[in-house]
Amino acid sequence: MVIQTMPDVSPTKWHLAHVSWFFERFILGEHLDGYRPFDQRYDFLFNSYYYTAGQMHARPRRGLLSRPTVAEVLDYRAHVDEHMKRLLSTRDDQDFEFLVTLGLNHEQQHQELMLTDIKHVFAANPLEPAWRPAPETRAGVAGPMSFAGFPGGVVEIGNDDGGFCFDNETPRHRSWLEDFQIATRPVSNDEYREFIRDGGYQAPELWLSDGWSVIQTEDWRQPLYWDLALETEFTLGGRREIDPEAPVCHLSYYEADAFARWAGARLPTEAEWEVVAREFPVAGNLADSGAFHPRPAGGTGPRQFFGDVWEWTAGAYAPYPGFRPLAGSLGEYNGKFMCSQMVLRGGSCATPAGHIRPSYRNFFYPHQRWQFTGLRLARDV
Amino acid sequence: MVIQTMPDVSPTKWHLAHVSWFFERFILGEHLDGYRPFDQRYDFLFNSYYYTAGQMHARPRRGLLSRPTVAEVLDYRAHVDEHMKRLLSTRDDQDFEFLVTLGLNHEQQHQELMLTDIKHVFAANPLEPAWRPAPETRAGVAGPMSFAGFPGGVVEIGNDDGGFCFDNETPRHRSWLEDFQIATRPVSNDEYREFIRDGGYQAPELWLSDGWSVIQTEDWRQPLYWDLALETEFTLGGRREIDPEAPVCHLSYYEADAFARWAGARLPTEAEWEVVAREFPVAGNLADSGAFHPRPAGGTGPRQFFGDVWEWTAGAYAPYPGFRPLAGSLGEYNGKFMCSQMVLRGGSCATPAGHIRPSYRNFFYPHQRWQFTGLRLARDV
Amino acid sequence: MVIQTMPDVSPTKWHLAHVSWFFERFILGEHLDGYRPFDQRYDFLFNSYYYTAGQMHARPRRGLLSRPTVAEVLDYRAHVDEHMKRLLSTRDDQDFEFLVTLGLNHEQQHQELMLTDIKHVFAANPLEPAWRPAPETRAGVAGPMSFAGFPGGVVEIGNDDGGFCFDNETPRHRSWLEDFQIATRPVSNDEYREFIRDGGYQAPELWLSDGWSVIQTEDWRQPLYWDLALETEFTLGGRREIDPEAPVCHLSYYEADAFARWAGARLPTEAEWEVVAREFPVAGNLADSGAFHPRPAGGTGPRQFFGDVWEWTAGAYAPYPGFRPLAGSLGEYNGKFMCSQMVLRGGSCATPAGHIRPSYRNFFYPHQRWQFTGLRLARDV
Amino acid sequence: MVIQTMPDVSPTKWHLAHVSWFFERFILGEHLDGYRPFDQRYDFLFNSYYYTAGQMHARPRRGLLSRPTVAEVLDYRAHVDEHMKRLLSTRDDQDFEFLVTLGLNHEQQHQELMLTDIKHVFAANPLEPAWRPAPETRAGVAGPMSFAGFPGGVVEIGNDDGGFCFDNETPRHRSWLEDFQIATRPVSNDEYREFIRDGGYQAPELWLSDGWSVIQTEDWRQPLYWDLALETEFTLGGRREIDPEAPVCHLSYYEADAFARWAGARLPTEAEWEVVAREFPVAGNLADSGAFHPRPAGGTGPRQFFGDVWEWTAGAYAPYPGFRPLAGSLGEYNGKFMCSQMVLRGGSCATPAGHIRPSYRNFFYPHQRWQFTGLRLARDV
Repeated sequence: MVIQTMPDVSPTKWHLAHVSWFFERFILGEHLDGYRPFDQRYDFLFNSYYYTAGQMHARPRRGLLSRPTVAEVLDYRAHVDEHMKRLLSTRDDQDFEFLVTLGLNHEQQHQELMLTDIKHVFAANPLEPAWRPAPETRAGVAGPMSFAGFPGGVVEIGNDDGGFCFDNETPRHRSWLEDFQIATRPVSNDEYREFIRDGGYQAPELWLSDGWSVIQTEDWRQPLYWDLALETEFTLGGRREIDPEAPVCHLSYYEADAFARWAGARLPTEAEWEVVAREFPVAGNLADSGAFHPRPAGGTGPRQFFGDVWEWTAGAYAPYPGFRPLAGSLGEYNGKFMCSQMVLRGGSCATPAGHIRPSYRNFFYPHQRWQFTGLRLARDV
Repeated sequence: MVIQTMPDVSPTKWHLAHVSWFFERFILGEHLDGYRPFDQRYDFLFNSYYYTAGQMHARPRRGLLSRPTVAEVLDYRAHVDEHMKRLLSTRDDQDFEFLVTLGLNHEQQHQELMLTDIKHVFAANPLEPAWRPAPETRAGVAGPMSFAGFPGGVVEIGNDDGGFCFDNETPRHRSWLEDFQIATRPVSNDEYREFIRDGGYQAPELWLSDGWSVIQTEDWRQPLYWDLALETEFTLGGRREIDPEAPVCHLSYYEADAFARWAGARLPTEAEWEVVAREFPVAGNLADSGAFHPRPAGGTGPRQFFGDVWEWTAGAYAPYPGFRPLAGSLGEYNGKFMCSQMVLRGGSCATPAGHIRPSYRNFFYPHQRWQFTGLRLARDV
Repeated sequence: MVIQTMPDVSPTKWHLAHVSWFFERFILGEHLDGYRPFDQRYDFLFNSYYYTAGQMHARPRRGLLSRPTVAEVLDYRAHVDEHMKRLLSTRDDQDFEFLVTLGLNHEQQHQELMLTDIKHVFAANPLEPAWRPAPETRAGVAGPMSFAGFPGGVVEIGNDDGGFCFDNETPRHRSWLEDFQIATRPVSNDEYREFIRDGGYQAPELWLSDGWSVIQTEDWRQPLYWDLALETEFTLGGRREIDPEAPVCHLSYYEADAFARWAGARLPTEAEWEVVAREFPVAGNLADSGAFHPRPAGGTGPRQFFGDVWEWTAGAYAPYPGFRPLAGSLGEYNGKFMCSQMVLRGGSCATPAGHIRPSYRNFFYPHQRWQFTGLRLARDV
Repeated sequence: MVIQTMPDVSPTKWHLAHVSWFFERFILGEHLDGYRPFDQRYDFLFNSYYYTAGQMHARPRRGLLSRPTVAEVLDYRAHVDEHMKRLLSTRDDQDFEFLVTLGLNHEQQHQELMLTDIKHVFAANPLEPAWRPAPETRAGVAGPMSFAGFPGGVVEIGNDDGGFCFDNETPRHRSWLEDFQIATRPVSNDEYREFIRDGGYQAPELWLSDGWSVIQTEDWRQPLYWDLALETEFTLGGRREIDPEAPVCHLSYYEADAFARWAGARLPTEAEWEVVAREFPVAGNLADSGAFHPRPAGGTGPRQFFGDVWEWTAGAYAPYPGFRPLAGSLGEYNGKFMCSQMVLRGGSCATPAGHIRPSYRNFFYPHQRWQFTGLRLARDV
């Protein structure tokens, strides 16, 4: 619970302390009269990136902390829980409800990160330990991939369903779409293996310039966690045979983009993805299934928008027209990252089912691939 | 003509050889029967980034070449010119005309880069040599900045005027715009100085996360080439007093974005900029003026869209819907850079007047600022 | 027991597994018939630097191992201990005795490293946890420092006492010494503080060129673990007031050398140190005292050669004339490090008392200072 | 004359300006009444490493200077020469003579560096230009290598011949030597090629730990400037066939040391080398021969101590007992480098004949190999 294998990864212990700090700093500290922090120094240690809330411990040094111990962090959590319960019994206004819901959604995000970070930590160990029994390799059949057509025009995207959402999903706004086609399901391991065997990683014409540079520098020749023979992959259950039917996973944006070009297609825009996906129920192989690994979903029509793998879109993460970040330090939550990252949609097998929405915008840098990230193709008409 | 101060910069000699190579490799080599390259080895030395055209000399090593000498490069150019003349006398079809025009536009881009690269090289020298007499400091009055309103709706942007344009300006396509306002002129040095004096570089809430990180790491406290006292700037004419009325220049995207946030505004989108700018003639302080430095432009209404400074937009550089790159190796010209860069519009005081268009899309990484880059504000209604 | 704060530091768990592996690999594996390794994969994980014994896990990645757990490592140790006991009951020849003694001395070295590495890990934590109660600040009086003179001539140094020693202490050989003087005790914290207050870290003429470069780059202005006010230091007992009388500690060679120059003196050579120190009993504040921190030693004459702080000498670590490393992989133990490092003598407050000898040669790179390292002055006559 | 291929290398133009500055700063500025510097700013640009003489331009940025031009530097030189002539006509005291001689010897050192730096610059160019006609490949026969024995005892080394020498060659002092043998000539290309073909670069047991690390990281598999086939080498005359009989050249200390271990020998100590070499006249293939490349020297007995290649010794560069650096800023000339470097003896084919002495101590870091550096073997008896 202590190890950090790269700056992107945080120790499990840190995640636990940080989500507790989030409640303490932004709710208890501001709304519970006379609240005394569990330990003043945690404000420095467990602030992630809220510069306007104070100084913070450098991110790449999170794995250097032998203290507080796991037991002390659990005590911290209990302390925060107890005071949250007390405060919850006294407040029921809408602003407060939003704050608590934000804290819970924040925690759900870190639940997903804990899983992906543990996977990275375990994979860095030559012993390749398993966190749980390996997921089944033959978990079903993907069914054929085809393209479904949708009409263009002025569409509206963004969240206005009245429930909780992050600031970056708003405001609901108009956008212009040309007619387009979108693939009925994500790209499978077998399809991606064909790309590799066709020399995909050796063909510069398929790659963005930055992507070509990264795969040379990092010597990438396959998705993260695959072996060189393209036969096995490391999972939260240890190494196992690759399921050819399951959605391909742990791709960078560069790889998703190169595959799409090789396939004579492209990635969908955010708007294309959203107008299609919101017609389907939010259900699928999400964290609640307990699989913690992508699985094929049978069928024929458009499907599998939620769960399994986050789907890279062609959309650079940017503010929606009229975007206003939350007030105060919480305004740093999403808005300040709106540069040089790409949006992903739909949630993964590590996303809590109650956390995802059609309008949900996740975002990562194009080289990052330790999340459960895959792709779905789209085409012009 | 030999020095390279950072990987982004190329030696003057290299620019000269590279633009010659472009004609040799993509026109003479493919269209002039029996053409023999001036020196086979130049194919390696002066290929910039066309992976599909062969191996190339590493970009950061361009400044390590004492040979070919300047005289040899000029001979190379004469050789290419002579054969181009011969070929031009035998071909007048449209495809060929496009190729030659592309070669000339390519050369115009490098004419601008030569100026900005020489400026960087000279500025790196503690002696701060001047390339030419210093531009006048009091070159006019900027006039007041206000905002002009424009209606939204479905607009068309992209090039379809029938003349030459780059592939990245096409296809002409529809886009949705909300009503918006755009500033009548670029931000001036004096206005930017006010931002600095108001603590702009010390206020994390104004900055994108990546930008805040860069200004800490690089210890940026003012535009490139300004002194710490905010009184003088290095120009192609050496160090001189900052002209308070002239457009602010040599800003990164991060700085442009932070200024806009401080000013309660934002950067314009590509479509907003284009639909306004195309109503004005393509004229201004471009390279042909010989000033090679931004100057204030008097007046009151919307103005100064072309020349002086490239204007950062809020648009991440991405393919237009339906974009198709040029065929073959020339497809690497623009398309493969469509990730993690931001679009700039309008040309600068170093851009040849015949090179710029309302639909022209320049692009740089958000941290880059050695070009003549500034900004114009925009607002929602 | 898992954290690695820099490549020089190893996790406590790694130390424990590595010393066990040393017995397994070099004794059980070669001398106990039919011995089966506890886990074949540990040969890769816990080999430190014996290239001729096989591939190994990269040193900077030792802190990325969540497995084997501490419990598994303790099982490993028990397994090795049990088989060592069995083997010990069947062998009593001299070669075998040497090997076992080497294994035990190797373990003693790692006992010291565990303490210095834990200190580094704890110091990297903003909470500055204590491993044990803080050592007393006023632990005695250093007594005056003076210089004692010794005659030169042909001397013999190196080990020939018949007991165990490392290969690098041999062979006993002749060396020429001029008459010299050596300080009666190590330099104290108070004396070093005077050097700092006199501008020692700002005076380039006092420093080796490499040292000046390091203190600029690393922004060193005081010994490791001191605060900027020169009032407190981090110890294995947490932060406490600096004891002015105790030997100064956690200095790099560069700092020891600069202090000596400032003091109008120099560091002793290995031979000078050894011919003086061997006249004294091997006793002092070594690990067995339980202080784990340097203490002043009262008195007047030459003293305190053993324990408290390793004393940097002026000697570059090099083979003695006629040096022969141990045969086989154990030849990699010492000999291959005989370049670019400096020799230290006398042991520290973290060195087991049974481990140190007058002829003992410890060695570190001149920039390293996380060991308990100090200095004693010397002078020409 | 402008290019710098690595921090160790300086542009030819810089060398020329720096040696002029040395005369200006340390002689004219302090001894010629009313002398006005040619350009005050050169004090910053052309100070190499004399911290006590003022701030200086960062070494790795020497190749970024387009100004002063070569013509301006030659004017600078003429200015300094003219004032030196004037001053020389008025002073003939011993202190002054020493200073001028020091300035001349300093310039001789930079004459050698110009050659080795130009070689490095030209070799970095894929065109591999030649500075002059290639040296003959078959320039003679090396003659057999054998070992000559010498008796040990108390010897004296260091300079006391009354002529000019650097401070680091003094004082003359006693040292103890055991009986030893030294090779009659340097190791040849053919002998080194045998080492490579015998797997020398793949055998960790032959290498110092730091050396093994460097050859892995840098992917060294042969001397600098050799091709992978071990057939050709880059010379100041361009690429040519390797002369099997000539002394091997452009080795790091690590490679020299590994070869010696492979050959069952070792490198000589400084004292061993000096007591043997001083019995021979200072003559050989030095810069004055005009070959600028090592050549074989026929014969049978001990020979070839001077010229051809600097010979790595086993001696870490350290102060001689009783060493006192020059007073003032000139004390920074040699003394502050006495750490982590190894001593080389005898001069090379790029060393001016009037510059070298038996007591001369050159020094480089063990990984450096762009000088003309080779080795001679030695053995215990």
